[in-house]
Formats: sequence, structure tokens, C-alpha cells
Amino acid sequence: MKSYTEYLWFNTARRREYINITSQVEEAVKKSGIKEGLVLVSAMHITAGIYVNDAEEGIIQDIDNMLEKLAPFGPDYLHHRTGEDNGDAHLKSILVHHQVILPVTSGRLDLGPWQQVYYAEFDGRRRKRVIIKVLGE
Amino acid sequence: MKSYTEYLWFNTARRREYINITSQVEEAVKKSGIKEGLVLVSAMHITAGIYVNDAEEGIIQDIDNMLEKLAPFGPDYLHHRTGEDNGDAHLKSILVHHQVILPVTSGRLDLGPWQQVYYAEFDGRRRKRVIIKVLGE
Amino acid sequence: MKSYTEYLWFNTARRREYINITSQVEEAVKKSGIKEGLVLVSAMHITAGIYVNDAEEGIIQDIDNMLEKLAPFGPDYLHHRTGEDNGDAHLKSILVHHQVILPVTSGRLDLGPWQQVYYAEFDGRRRKRVIIKVLGE
Repeated sequence: MKSYTEYLWFNTARRREYINITSQVEEAVKKSGIKEGLVLVSAMHITAGIYVNDAEEGIIQDIDNMLEKLAPFGPDYLHHRTGEDNGDAHLKSILVHHQVILPVTSGRLDLGPWQQVYYAEFDGRRRKRVIIKVLGE
Repeated sequence: MKSYTEYLWFNTARRREYINITSQVEEAVKKSGIKEGLVLVSAMHITAGIYVNDAEEGIIQDIDNMLEKLAPFGPDYLHHRTGEDNGDAHLKSILVHHQVILPVTSGRLDLGPWQQVYYAEFDGRRRKRVIIKVLGE
Repeated sequence: MKSYTEYLWFNTARRREYINITSQVEEAVKKSGIKEGLVLVSAMHITAGIYVNDAEEGIIQDIDNMLEKLAPFGPDYLHHRTGEDNGDAHLKSILVHHQVILPVTSGRLDLGPWQQVYYAEFDGRRRKRVIIKVLGE
């Protein structure tokens, strides 16, 4: 069994941003030398998410709109008694989920035709981290 | 370490359908010969999901009703500027999540008493695929 | 390759409860002797969830409020034709997701500064179980 670990850093210009990280994950798989296995891609902060979906600007905005409808940015969170203003970002992270597992087959990410891996930043403008861990052989 | 990969194909009659695939996953685990490990079950399309819940008709309809409330089928998605009409299906896939990981113990799926694995089709009537990958020994 | 499996049992006093289980998962990783790998933490019941977020009372209540807004406790679920009254708990489990995968690096949970693992009980006051399975070497 082999394993390989890599960390990606982000510091977005805007509060919310959706960044396609598929090629960076693909690159990590290549470096790992693993041919058959699984890759975990997981946000290390509680106000960000990782998801797999389409690299299409319209649907990215639709996802953002849905999350804003279900967990709107605003003042009315109990979490804000701590001095924070990012309650919505925690909830968006829960809804999107903060991680995915990708299959590795024959040394490549085994994704469907339209599947792309996204880092979803819900409270940016600060340094944040994602872990990539490949396990297999 | 051993690994085993299998693909399931679906082509549902209706746009939305929920299909119990537990026995197919169990079968893949058996074929893998793996006694201790993890199985990834992951939709390879961005308008489908995989979840674990009850094999009970009422709750399946309740899940569908909730998803339709949170991300309704309809015309008002930016994604539809591409000519597609399935914006809701992408959002439903995000909410349900497109994958699960199941534990394998003593050569069997190590599930609780009511846990069943479901393929959730949100934009059917076309050929779509799910990957099953077992990792362990 | 090594694997290690452990089960946690819960029997909460209230219907809904959020319990920090990070130290129990950390303990299981230590017992496994695994230095590099992945840990699956997965609810074995269909009315509970596992998530990673903040150990802060306000945000825990905010998560509960959001889930109650999106899938309210109440009588109007088709699932209740079976005699059950916990339709909302199934839906909350779907939204939160019933599992997480945590990376293990150098024998420790490789979590970000604020990441804590929570058991989310949505239909308590009965004995329920969570599986922890560590895979790696």
C-alpha cells in the first residue's frame, strides 16, 4: 500500500468563490504513483466545501443562488454572538459537504464525462487549506 | 492490498427515479474477495446521486418532495442558457451528495439494520453510470 | 495494509442532540496503529448524521435551526403511514450526510484548526450505533 498527501492553499479575492481544482487533484494522483485507489479531497476549514459538478458558469451561479436561499448571508445567526459574521458559510459548508472521494483507476481520476472537482469558498479573503490524500497501490 | 472496480449502468424510464442497488454493491464486494476495507459507490454523472436510507416507499417520496421544494424543476436556472433543462437535477445531486463510502467487515457490507444504498436519478431517460470501487484486503 | 474497526453506541436523552466525538475517533486511530490512511466515521442508522464543523454552541443551534427549517418535525410525511413519526429525521440525515472520511497523517487525525467531528442525532432516546473504520498502514 502507498499513500501520498498534499495540501492546497487558497486566498480568494471575494467572500464566495468556486474554483475548479480538478487538474491539481489529477497532478497529485500522478505524483503519488498510485494506479488503483481512492483520493480524498477535503476542506480543512469549516466555512468551505468540496463538490463534484459541472464546469459551467450558469450552474455555478445556480448553486450559489440555491445556497444563498437555503442559508442566506446575514446577521441573524447565534454564531455571531462570538463576534463572527460567517454563520451562513458554516451552513453552506454543511449543505454542500466539505469533501469528496474520487476513484483512481489505471493511474487516472476515474471521473464521468462532465465531472469536475470544485473548491467552494464561502468565507474567503484569508488563507485556507485543502488536503488531498491518495491511498492505494 | 486488493482493489476491485465495477460499473453499473442505468437508463430509467422516468426523469426522476430511486433505485435500490444494495444487492449489486454486496455482489461486487463478494467478487472482490476483500474481507476488510471500504467501498466507494459514486455517480459518474452530475445530475444523479447516491444515498443510504430506508427501503420504504413513503420516505422515498418524502425525499423527492423535499428535494423538489429546495431545488424545484423549472425554467428559471441560469444553466438553461446552455439549452439544457436540468438545472434542478444538478442542484438535487449537490444536496443528496453523489456518493457514499460503505465499510466492508468480514467480507460483507457492514450496514445498520435499515440501511439500503440508493441510486437517485434526477435526469433520466438516458444511459448513465455508477462506479463501485472496493479497496482493502 | 492494516484495518481497524470500532463501534460507538449512543442513547441520547433528547430527540435531537449534537455530540462531539472527535476524541473517540482520535482514540480509535491511536489503537489502530495506522500512521497513513483514511478513517470512515459513519452512522449505522438512517435518522442520524455525521458532520465536521465547529465546537461552538451558537453554530450548533444554527445548524439545528436550518435543518428544522428545511425538513421540519411534523405530521405531514408519507413515511408516517407506517406508524413512524420521524420522517423529518430521515430528511435531516440526508441533508447533513450520514458520514465523513478523515485523513490520518503521521498517526493523527489530519484536521484543520477548527474541525471537530459531530454525531448528529435526529431521532434519539433509543440505542444507536456509529462505525469507525481505519484503513492504511
